[in-house]
Amino acid sequence: MAQEAPYVTIGRQFVEFYYQTFDTNRAGLGGLYRPTSMMSWEEKHHLGADAIVEKLTNLPFSKVQHDVTNATKDFQPIGEDTILVLITGALMVEGQERPMSFSQVFTLKQDAQNWYIYNEMFRFVYPAA
Amino acid sequence: MAQEAPYVTIGRQFVEFYYQTFDTNRAGLGGLYRPTSMMSWEEKHHLGADAIVEKLTNLPFSKVQHDVTNATKDFQPIGEDTILVLITGALMVEGQERPMSFSQVFTLKQDAQNWYIYNEMFRFVYPAA
Repeated sequence: MAQEAPYVTIGRQFVEFYYQTFDTNRAGLGGLYRPTSMMSWEEKHHLGADAIVEKLTNLPFSKVQHDVTNATKDFQPIGEDTILVLITGALMVEGQERPMSFSQVFTLKQDAQNWYIYNEMFRFVYPAA
Repeated sequence: MAQEAPYVTIGRQFVEFYYQTFDTNRAGLGGLYRPTSMMSWEEKHHLGADAIVEKLTNLPFSKVQHDVTNATKDFQPIGEDTILVLITGALMVEGQERPMSFSQVFTLKQDAQNWYIYNEMFRFVYPAA
């Protein structure tokens, strides 16, 4: 059996942790960001761990469930030290009747022994027709 | 009026050129790739300009139109020398009745005076419900 590339293993572990934490304890995502981290959520841009966590914990829905199992998960290395992650899938907001499609991209970098989010972009994807 | 950051200007110009070329002369995208460029199209991975252009020119549809105007376009810098681009939107394949949603991410790097695609990932995004 071919061994999985390290960037894929790291990416998969990140995706599991991120969405599990997002759906159960959003404030717990803070450790994934640094002062230089950039995040855009729809049109709005947020710089640094504090601003990003404030945004994430104040989204206009309190409970959300990402369908991580059925999401697409793509990973590629960017040079030696960065990992690119693209997720497309569905999420269910509490109180809404139907799930919504979303797309989210991350770049992951490493400091000391920890991987953290350097870039993040989130977009809802609406049906094309 | 606030001046647009260079990475946004470069990103916008790239997006216009990429989709216009994709929709009119897909083989013309070759100049955007280098031997180290990585591209994934749905599940499949392709490495290097030759393999990527072969994939793009042999997709199972001969004519396609991306709705670039209404697509979301997000840009962020990755360090000093790389630009992250996320596009979500709709495309219309010739012969099909309805447009399809897609999500596509790029990283752009520069050699000499030219920006080129270092990473690319494409996914169709299907309605969540």
